[in-house]
This record gives sequence, structure tokens and C-alpha cells, in this order.
Amino acid sequence: MSMSEQSLSNLQAKIRQFCDERNWDQFHNGKDLAISLSLEAAELLEHFQWKDEAEVRKHMQDNKSEVAEELADVFYWVLLIANKFDIDLVDVFDKKMIKNAKKYPVEKSKDSHRKYTELS
Amino acid sequence: MSMSEQSLSNLQAKIRQFCDERNWDQFHNGKDLAISLSLEAAELLEHFQWKDEAEVRKHMQDNKSEVAEELADVFYWVLLIANKFDIDLVDVFDKKMIKNAKKYPVEKSKDSHRKYTELS
Amino acid sequence: MSMSEQSLSNLQAKIRQFCDERNWDQFHNGKDLAISLSLEAAELLEHFQWKDEAEVRKHMQDNKSEVAEELADVFYWVLLIANKFDIDLVDVFDKKMIKNAKKYPVEKSKDSHRKYTELS
Amino acid sequence: MSMSEQSLSNLQAKIRQFCDERNWDQFHNGKDLAISLSLEAAELLEHFQWKDEAEVRKHMQDNKSEVAEELADVFYWVLLIANKFDIDLVDVFDKKMIKNAKKYPVEKSKDSHRKYTELS
Repeated sequence: MSMSEQSLSNLQAKIRQFCDERNWDQFHNGKDLAISLSLEAAELLEHFQWKDEAEVRKHMQDNKSEVAEELADVFYWVLLIANKFDIDLVDVFDKKMIKNAKKYPVEKSKDSHRKYTELS
Repeated sequence: MSMSEQSLSNLQAKIRQFCDERNWDQFHNGKDLAISLSLEAAELLEHFQWKDEAEVRKHMQDNKSEVAEELADVFYWVLLIANKFDIDLVDVFDKKMIKNAKKYPVEKSKDSHRKYTELS
Repeated sequence: MSMSEQSLSNLQAKIRQFCDERNWDQFHNGKDLAISLSLEAAELLEHFQWKDEAEVRKHMQDNKSEVAEELADVFYWVLLIANKFDIDLVDVFDKKMIKNAKKYPVEKSKDSHRKYTELS
Repeated sequence: MSMSEQSLSNLQAKIRQFCDERNWDQFHNGKDLAISLSLEAAELLEHFQWKDEAEVRKHMQDNKSEVAEELADVFYWVLLIANKFDIDLVDVFDKKMIKNAKKYPVEKSKDSHRKYTELS
């Protein structure tokens, strides 16, 4: 099985083992988990600050692994929070995609970045 | 194949199809994608604001699907950003876990929430 | 005039001079300014991550100047954004306080942390 | 005294009165205050999401008061946090500006958006 074919539950099991070995569950209340996710998202965003699109392209060429690592950090907290609250990520993802398809019908949202509340 | 066994590349293919149908790639520059991720992380965090642990538990009982949906939104942008910059999420996740294990050796980080830079 | 009595326009004039000397206005588009504000808010939040109230108190005793500096960073971007978009901060603050008083009438919001949309 | 000449301590006194009337100090722990600041910064950032510079200009013409209100919300939490932790905002602001001037010497940072750690 190639790495990219690993299931999410497989990845979550790795996180659980990592945290169990360190006895970290005692710190993992929902509020601090959500803070952690938010802080890692901010660290990713910092890579794009002040840069126009050409500079972003250059930055990605030179620092792809750093950006990838920040994204992995965000992903880590997504998986951990899902595990903590017993949320089936793939299930809610699929439901969300169906909801999004209704909120953003192709004929109204094609070539538009307007929010669904502003689609006429 | 159960839903939770879907691979990440499977989920990313769904996002690509959704965005392609709407011709949204034109808007998906790195900066705005990272902003989107950050804003969705904030919406998740809002669920925990002002609540102590008992209130969080109560809130999760009554609003689990809303919280799950916010987490799915964050997950959506993680997948889309990974796809945009050709980042293999599972690969970087696995590398990150190895790195984390070195930064947080069990003997030093057990029962501690200190940052690795503060572990003595 | 004591320092704490300096007007906001006085502080904004200092920022303008600082940025003018460095010719930084060329970079100060609204999106990146709002990103900067968000990132500094995240750096402040990081000081509270994983800490319970007793630990926050201890942390504030030992690191008050670092926390104060992060808050100053947030304040800097608030002032700069207000200046950039010609927003009179004190005026909008006063209007907001009047609005908040209506949204949160004393009799309904006393001893409650519920959002105004949830006040019955 | 024009509104814009009101001192920060004057504004903070208004916040204190507002919160005292509602007995809200019981909820104002540092972590939730910092979360609130972060969430309001995100709401401001949302106004700039997906918009290029021309669209931002148009948006500011049509929605200046909404943006101003979000900025006032951020400012509110800055003032409240400063008050809570007995931080003299003007004092730390002035110190920070001196520090910034050293970190970003004019000759090295003119016309550059590089972080001080990357100035050679």
C-alpha cells in the first residue's frame, strides 16, 4: 500500500499512540485543541504575507518543504480533534461536499468568488 | 470500501471536480487559500469561546454536527492547499511524526505541555 | 502630558513617519494588513495555549513584558489599518459601545456569556 | 475635546463600566480574551478574502462602516486585555516603535518587505 493510500484512521492511530506514550490526553481539552489548530493555520498563512503571486511562486519553489510541514501541522490537529470528538472526517467531508454543491449551484457560482449568501 | 477507508487522493479528486465545474481555479492563489484555512479554523474555535470544560462537553452533545461541519471545512482547505501545491499530505505527515518524536522524547515530555524549546 | 494621555492620532503619526521613512506604503494593501493583524493576534494567543488559569497567572508574572509587546504589535496594526482606510477609531469605538449596549441589555446579559443572538 | 482626542484610559473606563454593569469580569480570563481578539481579527480579514486590490477598493467604498466596525471590535479587545493585565498600551507601543526602528534600520529595510531576520 503506497503511503498516500493510508486511511485517515491509520494516521489517527499513529497520533493516538504518540500522545498515549506521552500521556498528553490530560491536556487535550477542546478549547486548546482548537487554539492549536488556529495557531498552526496562522503559521501557514505567514508564508504568504506581503508576497504577490510571483513572489509566492518563488517562495514555494525555495521553501516547499517548510510550507508542507506547516500544512502537516494543521492536518495533525484536524485528525486529533476528529479523534477526540469521535467525528468521522470522511463522512462529514462527503456530507459537506453535497451541501456545498447545493449552496453553490454551477450555473450561479461559475467564475464567481461570491459567497453563497450573495449569489442572486 | 467503507467511507472512512477512502484515500486522501480520492477526497482531493472530489474537490478538484467540484472546483473545476465552477472554474474556481482562477481564484485559488496561495494567499487566499491560506486565509480561507485560517478563517475556518477561527469558526471552529468560536465554538469553544467562553466555555469551561463542562460547558464544552454539553455543547458537543448538543451541537456535534455543527462542530463536525466546521472541522470538515478546515479539512477541505487542507486537502485543497495540498493539491494546489502538489504536497503529499500522508508523506509529510509521516515525516512530521518522526520529527515530533525527536523533538518530544518520551522521557522529557511525558506529562508535560511545555514546548520542545523549553524542555530541559 | 503623560504618555498614557497621548492621543491615537499622535500614535498614528509616529507609525506614518516610521513607514514613510522606509517607503513601506507600497506594501500596505488591505489584505496583507489584515493578515498581519491576524498573525499578531495569534502570537498573543500562543501565550495562553495549554495553560489553565493558575498557569496563566504565573506566566503573566514571569512574562508580562513579552505579552505586552505582542499586544502592542496588535495595537500597531489596528492603528495602521485605521489610518490606511481613514477610519476614526474613537468614533467607531463609541458607536460600537452604543450598539453593544443595545445588543446586550443589562437585564438579559448580566452574569451570562451567551451571544446576543442567543439571549431570550 | 474632540472625540479623536480622547485618551485610551478614557476608552478603557467605558469598557470597564460596560462590563461591570453586566458582571462579566467572571468570564474574562486571559485565554478567552485572547481568543476573542483572534476571532475578531479573523472577521476583519474575511472582508479581504478572495478580493484583488481593485475589488478591495470597491468593497471599502461600499462597506467602510462594516469594516470600521470590525476594526473597532478588535480595538475593544486590545483595550480590555490591556486593562485586565494592567498593561500601559501607549508605553509599550512607544517602546516597541524604538525596538522596531533598530530591527528595521532605514538603509536596510527601505523598499523591502523582508522580515528583520532576513535583512542582510
